[in-house]
Amino acid sequence: MSTFPTTLQHCQALDTVDALHPLRDLFDIPAGVIYLDGNSLGVMPKTAAARAAEVVTQEWGQGLIRSWNTAGWFSLPQRLGNRIAPLIGAGADEVVATDTTSINLFKVLSAALSIAAQDAPQRKLIVSERSNFPTDLYIAEGLCKERGYTLKLVEPEEIAAALTADVAVLMLTHVNYRTGAMHDMTAVTAAAHAAGALMVWDLAHSAGAVPVTLKASNADFSIGCGYKYLNGGPGAPAFVWVHPKHADRFWQPLSGWWGHAAPFAFTPDYQPAPGITRYLCGTQPIVSMSLLGCGLEGFEAADKLGGMAALRTKSLALTDLFIQLVEERCQGYGLGLATPRAHAQRGSQVCLTREHAVGGSGAFAIVQALIARGVIGDYRAGDGGIHKDILRFGFTPLYIGFEDVWNAVEHLRQVLETGEWQKPEFNQKHAVT
Amino acid sequence: MSTFPTTLQHCQALDTVDALHPLRDLFDIPAGVIYLDGNSLGVMPKTAAARAAEVVTQEWGQGLIRSWNTAGWFSLPQRLGNRIAPLIGAGADEVVATDTTSINLFKVLSAALSIAAQDAPQRKLIVSERSNFPTDLYIAEGLCKERGYTLKLVEPEEIAAALTADVAVLMLTHVNYRTGAMHDMTAVTAAAHAAGALMVWDLAHSAGAVPVTLKASNADFSIGCGYKYLNGGPGAPAFVWVHPKHADRFWQPLSGWWGHAAPFAFTPDYQPAPGITRYLCGTQPIVSMSLLGCGLEGFEAADKLGGMAALRTKSLALTDLFIQLVEERCQGYGLGLATPRAHAQRGSQVCLTREHAVGGSGAFAIVQALIARGVIGDYRAGDGGIHKDILRFGFTPLYIGFEDVWNAVEHLRQVLETGEWQKPEFNQKHAVT
Repeated sequence: MSTFPTTLQHCQALDTVDALHPLRDLFDIPAGVIYLDGNSLGVMPKTAAARAAEVVTQEWGQGLIRSWNTAGWFSLPQRLGNRIAPLIGAGADEVVATDTTSINLFKVLSAALSIAAQDAPQRKLIVSERSNFPTDLYIAEGLCKERGYTLKLVEPEEIAAALTADVAVLMLTHVNYRTGAMHDMTAVTAAAHAAGALMVWDLAHSAGAVPVTLKASNADFSIGCGYKYLNGGPGAPAFVWVHPKHADRFWQPLSGWWGHAAPFAFTPDYQPAPGITRYLCGTQPIVSMSLLGCGLEGFEAADKLGGMAALRTKSLALTDLFIQLVEERCQGYGLGLATPRAHAQRGSQVCLTREHAVGGSGAFAIVQALIARGVIGDYRAGDGGIHKDILRFGFTPLYIGFEDVWNAVEHLRQVLETGEWQKPEFNQKHAVT
Repeated sequence: MSTFPTTLQHCQALDTVDALHPLRDLFDIPAGVIYLDGNSLGVMPKTAAARAAEVVTQEWGQGLIRSWNTAGWFSLPQRLGNRIAPLIGAGADEVVATDTTSINLFKVLSAALSIAAQDAPQRKLIVSERSNFPTDLYIAEGLCKERGYTLKLVEPEEIAAALTADVAVLMLTHVNYRTGAMHDMTAVTAAAHAAGALMVWDLAHSAGAVPVTLKASNADFSIGCGYKYLNGGPGAPAFVWVHPKHADRFWQPLSGWWGHAAPFAFTPDYQPAPGITRYLCGTQPIVSMSLLGCGLEGFEAADKLGGMAALRTKSLALTDLFIQLVEERCQGYGLGLATPRAHAQRGSQVCLTREHAVGGSGAFAIVQALIARGVIGDYRAGDGGIHKDILRFGFTPLYIGFEDVWNAVEHLRQVLETGEWQKPEFNQKHAVT
């Protein structure tokens, strides 16, 4: 990487020749902000305001109850699912947008345990990563308690050895939220299957960020998030995919009327709809769900420019550049790299650690000082053990450019060089997401 | 009721003297529409469009991730819950707005069964009404299958006799969606408790429609809907209440991070938050949820005019008038009344049946013909047995007036007198909600 440009002018030139660069014009990015938190909440597509107005004033206000049919509200989960499918390597009619990531994980993990209980009742373990996103672990913990399973948490390098004969399900997040480390979906799925376990993938930090090959990798179940890289808006509904070979096999226990074979027959007994529709439950938040469609338009525009493959190439160039510039320009301040250097093991974010002789890592305060300068990343606390405090920076190739990377690193350098992060106002913790 | 006015002029005069009548100006009602379907989807408050624009363009677009704190997104479920609480007879910090009615029922029914399993493990029945809203029955059916319980469905008049020593939970919808019949919450709860069963109330057709006394009636668990009488918008988040004596006793199994005692500590093990917050699960759809706040403003405006008590008085006057006018002006067309005449047993809707010698009830086609005239009610199919086809008309006292009632009945009379409901276009069934 020694020939990579390292001046502002070089970065500007990279933007000029980047065929994807014009896609940023599809989004409203606040003036003065370099937004490196699209892995937590994506920015607003420019079409969102008009779409929200249309759904509220026309579809709700004027159409009222008729809009369930005339505006297609009732089929939104399936229609959005079919638009998400190509981003995650799923087929048509295999995905629905609905509910939240946590609730969808409950559904698929329930179904996976039901299959395991039937096919391999002696298997009583769910294996996951200790640094998996906590809500995944909480949902698994609850289901284990309900059904007499045990949740075994390991470090990433211990996963292979943990795939013993008593494992029912391996549940992993494809790209780790703390480190940006990415699993090899095909290899890990194959290892789980070779050990007789089912494979559940959380795509919260993958969908729209990296190419995903669920079906080609022969995964069993998957869920993901609508409001991160998919730019669906705050709390946008999540999505769920189930391999077609499993989809009709069990009900998931959240057996509400939207998953019924004939919801408007109003029969007292539950008859699950065929396929993925049975993973729906109750009436969906139509305004929020409609805005998810605006987020997906960005990817449909990118399709004409090479799609997810082109976005991935740019994403790696952005994260490579960020790593290089941090290492060149922020030396001597104790920063370390938590994200793998190998492209095959990296998602679309870069996470830094900080070693400091006194007063803790300073990671929280450095992030706050950057936010005050308009460079929005986020902070994730360590556990005092091997999981260190993290400065987290997401690079969304749809709207982040190479000059942004230069400027972000320049702000980081100044924050460290001036010591402004030590100001009291940057050291007062409050809830951050 | 013989002295009640029965002319258009009388109805107009009633609107003139109705102190609540000006509240309809808080809502956008489409021109030419008499909207009698607020029990399915409430109309749009006039503040909703501006609020949607603010949440989308300012809070999301400009505030981005910072809005979790600065715009108070993270506390929305609790803040909205505290605004719903007075409408349902709950105390402060006892209600959260979140997820869907179906999912919230899963949570509270799970918790109720956990309590029953500990306190009375020999009780293995859930009792409900056969004509309860089907999704409630589907959720209960799924949980019964999971936990080894049996769902026993009875007619309303059989409930008392069904409260045997093997009943763990009595689960009822307070106001029946098909008939508008309302249970006596205090008496039924007392009967359940006397029989040793826990009481779960679904308030889908009650919250914002009739006064509700959850805590005074000593109910155990309750859930309800945000998009019907609360006017929160299509698929607005639902709500959940748990009696404080139960709230800390069990986790509900949808143990996601929003219900954690310290969600941003990112600890791998689940520690439920105290109280009702543990009934939260995943990240909520903020745009849809924010609009629920607009719906609640109507009730806050009504508080200055007598609140739910005044709304209830008007609701009964509206439904009385509708029944009277239908019986006076639509004689001879086979219409019958499915809703109780006794005020104490009536919600805020009137449901009609129709007997006809040939060709079925015609109920579906009559409703379609009314909709074509701008009188929007809805149709619910019967089961061919004792549950007949239903023409359903909801009367939301916040925005329906007495002249609306007159005009609706006049349209119904004309549809029946002219036979226009027999036109082919009114007899083609499609999905209706």
